[in-house]
Amino acid sequence: MNKYMNLAVEHAKIAFHNSDVPVGAVIVKNNEIIAACHNKKNTDNVAIYHAEILCIIEACKKIGSWYLNDCDIYVTLRPCNMCLYALAEARISNVYYLLDSDYDKNLNSNFNNINISSIDDIYEYSSLIKDFFKNLRDKNDVSRET
Amino acid sequence: MNKYMNLAVEHAKIAFHNSDVPVGAVIVKNNEIIAACHNKKNTDNVAIYHAEILCIIEACKKIGSWYLNDCDIYVTLRPCNMCLYALAEARISNVYYLLDSDYDKNLNSNFNNINISSIDDIYEYSSLIKDFFKNLRDKNDVSRET
Repeated sequence: MNKYMNLAVEHAKIAFHNSDVPVGAVIVKNNEIIAACHNKKNTDNVAIYHAEILCIIEACKKIGSWYLNDCDIYVTLRPCNMCLYALAEARISNVYYLLDSDYDKNLNSNFNNINISSIDDIYEYSSLIKDFFKNLRDKNDVSRET
Repeated sequence: MNKYMNLAVEHAKIAFHNSDVPVGAVIVKNNEIIAACHNKKNTDNVAIYHAEILCIIEACKKIGSWYLNDCDIYVTLRPCNMCLYALAEARISNVYYLLDSDYDKNLNSNFNNINISSIDDIYEYSSLIKDFFKNLRDKNDVSRET
């Protein structure tokens, strides 16, 4: 798998172990990784701490500019609309994602200034996210029984 | 003017003095102000540091929960789509705004779980935002002349 996406998957695993929905993201500028983050919504109790949002903040701080026009993002799950608009605000050039999501895909046609591509080789990550939701269901079943 | 919106305008003035687009926002839960922020995109050099985004982060941290379902936000300018999706992610109940904006209004019809209302009495804020962009144009004229 692409090495940047590989790192994004490693970050998704951290989220998984923290009981956060396993999503990881990496921002790359001129072949240099300038941000790598995972979803922290539950860990930090902040609604908008998706991996992409945290990556944008980290990348802007790293390069000292809000303008990420030479940057690409690799993210394990197709970004939600909040994140896509955030990536557009930051002028990110390319979005590469691993696993598709129907979360709110219907609105993506509104992004004219951003390229969105999927990347193949999804097997490992696909298992990770399935396991996450299976664990969640199992936990809910246990809590219903006790 | 509504006291919460009044505070939001005071925060917009701080942004104005920092040469950031003057937008302020206040989040209220059970008549208590739990967050009050202004746009810091230029000040902090972070693309997504709109007043609403910073308010959501502050409010979640204040109450220790990502779930702002009993909260309302008062914001001086109609939120952009990134911010509206962020407010929806945080389950904010009501959005009150002062000044309309055509920024990306065409997509707002997609928000079914969030009430968006305008508030009258916009004179002072309307001047503030006009002055901001007038100053910006004047500065650009000066820099073209020198």
